[in-house]
Amino acid sequence: MSEPRVRDLDEAALLRRIFAVLEGSSTALVGPGDDAAVLAVPGERLVATTDTLVHGPDFRLAWSSGEDLGRKAAAVNLADVAAMGARPTALLVALAVPDAMPVTFVEDLARGLRAACDELAPGCAIEGGDLTVSDTLTVAVTALGVLDGAPVRRSGARRGDIVAVAGDLGPATRGLRILFDRFRGADGTPMSMEPSVLSDAERSDVVAQLRPTPPIALGSVAARAGATAMMDVSDGLILDATRLADASGVTLDLSSSLDDDALTGGEDHALLATFPADAMPEGFRRIGTVRERGACAVTVGGVPFSGRGGWDPYQDWDAARG
Amino acid sequence: MSEPRVRDLDEAALLRRIFAVLEGSSTALVGPGDDAAVLAVPGERLVATTDTLVHGPDFRLAWSSGEDLGRKAAAVNLADVAAMGARPTALLVALAVPDAMPVTFVEDLARGLRAACDELAPGCAIEGGDLTVSDTLTVAVTALGVLDGAPVRRSGARRGDIVAVAGDLGPATRGLRILFDRFRGADGTPMSMEPSVLSDAERSDVVAQLRPTPPIALGSVAARAGATAMMDVSDGLILDATRLADASGVTLDLSSSLDDDALTGGEDHALLATFPADAMPEGFRRIGTVRERGACAVTVGGVPFSGRGGWDPYQDWDAARG
Repeated sequence: MSEPRVRDLDEAALLRRIFAVLEGSSTALVGPGDDAAVLAVPGERLVATTDTLVHGPDFRLAWSSGEDLGRKAAAVNLADVAAMGARPTALLVALAVPDAMPVTFVEDLARGLRAACDELAPGCAIEGGDLTVSDTLTVAVTALGVLDGAPVRRSGARRGDIVAVAGDLGPATRGLRILFDRFRGADGTPMSMEPSVLSDAERSDVVAQLRPTPPIALGSVAARAGATAMMDVSDGLILDATRLADASGVTLDLSSSLDDDALTGGEDHALLATFPADAMPEGFRRIGTVRERGACAVTVGGVPFSGRGGWDPYQDWDAARG
Repeated sequence: MSEPRVRDLDEAALLRRIFAVLEGSSTALVGPGDDAAVLAVPGERLVATTDTLVHGPDFRLAWSSGEDLGRKAAAVNLADVAAMGARPTALLVALAVPDAMPVTFVEDLARGLRAACDELAPGCAIEGGDLTVSDTLTVAVTALGVLDGAPVRRSGARRGDIVAVAGDLGPATRGLRILFDRFRGADGTPMSMEPSVLSDAERSDVVAQLRPTPPIALGSVAARAGATAMMDVSDGLILDATRLADASGVTLDLSSSLDDDALTGGEDHALLATFPADAMPEGFRRIGTVRERGACAVTVGGVPFSGRGGWDPYQDWDAARG
């Protein structure tokens, strides 16, 4: 094999490869090359969140390219910033990489992180990071953002508000099902994905799973429009709506026209928000109504939902990798 | 075994255990329980850095307790914030834990993170985090801080400045040597550390390796005193001084009274700074002089240093764990 691996380079050389991919994107007051970045925070309030993708529970290398992984790691974090009503301004990326990984994989990952920022959150860039060697490929991203007004929390939904969503509900979970059903060997080992055997609709679902594109810009739009509560749907609508309902002390009654994938599928990172009647901005669609707190946190067409609401990493991972 | 493991709890239950350890420390405008934290940034400039500890290259579980690991993960990140002349205000912690780890280990780790903040950087707290399962225990910390004045970079050292250091140089590397020499089996496997077989001085060195205590508060003191350049010594004085010298376009001439451990040992996270003559504040001691750039970035007693200057994670890890 002539392809260079991470172990063939020293840290400085690998960092140079990554910086070459990121070049020109920083807007930091002090960027890479010092002990820490210095970033502008107009308004003196910072939104900060962190989320990690781990080889095994969060992705399989048979299915995700480096660019897929970078895009997803950025997107899931940008969504958490957007869900507070904030504009993302910076990512910090802690990358732990097995030393046998191809250098090009790391470059592709950096390319994916940058592309997701450029496309989903223009003005946001990778402003810091850390590179270490590990037996388990791990991408820990911290996303930072700034607020124009007050943060939108999970706890502000009021009886009579509209329940609305921006972004897709369902494709990412359908995509995962396609990957599990069609691209694993008899023993469950993930097999390389062959897009040509998929229909256009199936391919689109798989892309939604591997490269989610949440509507990041609509987070601050919702805040300006007067959203009373907001969060991103990462673990499934029922499960996440329950969290919002519990935090707000209300019941969310969702439309009975939502199908099962929309109700229980996670990982699209759509924005779930509540608005006073008539305040819902463009880009959101109504999916329910906020009611006085009843016996159930969430109902569908007025009826309690029976079934599994979402995903728990400690209960649901089958310990496989590939 | 009746001791509960991470896999015996769901995510919410494990988070409750961690929150119980951290309770009462947050000063965030919006704390845990939402999609992201909201933090105050007086002065509108944020210092941000991230650094990761990975099982294998960065620690061995035969030697580090959960509390050791939490303390070290906090300290190395706090040092990077301090090295910019900033006051640390918040940590975000992305924790990836094998599901067989005892729950008490995770609680101890949270306890260590909190203790390091309380002792080294009062006012700094764990304001956000992420918890995931992984085959490799990984602690990725992002540290945030605020500035009273201008950030102190690596590039500002000027000819005639004093080279100074605050904090220890050498104990952590001596401690690592003791662990490698005395607490490994014939096949190199780390063995449980037995403090009673060590002298007081040896024990103190081992503690410096497992729980470094860099002088965090002296970072902003140095900035106010007029430090022209600063960084923390993480990989070894010669190696890190070379980085500072290269960034500043000068040569650092270090005192020939420094021993080998002080010159090449890393991981104490002392603060290396340059000051105009007579500006060096209390807590720092003089270890050299900034000279016009010569053939070498760093000299010791006027003579080029011959030997290895520090540690490279991609060249130096032996791939062992334990």
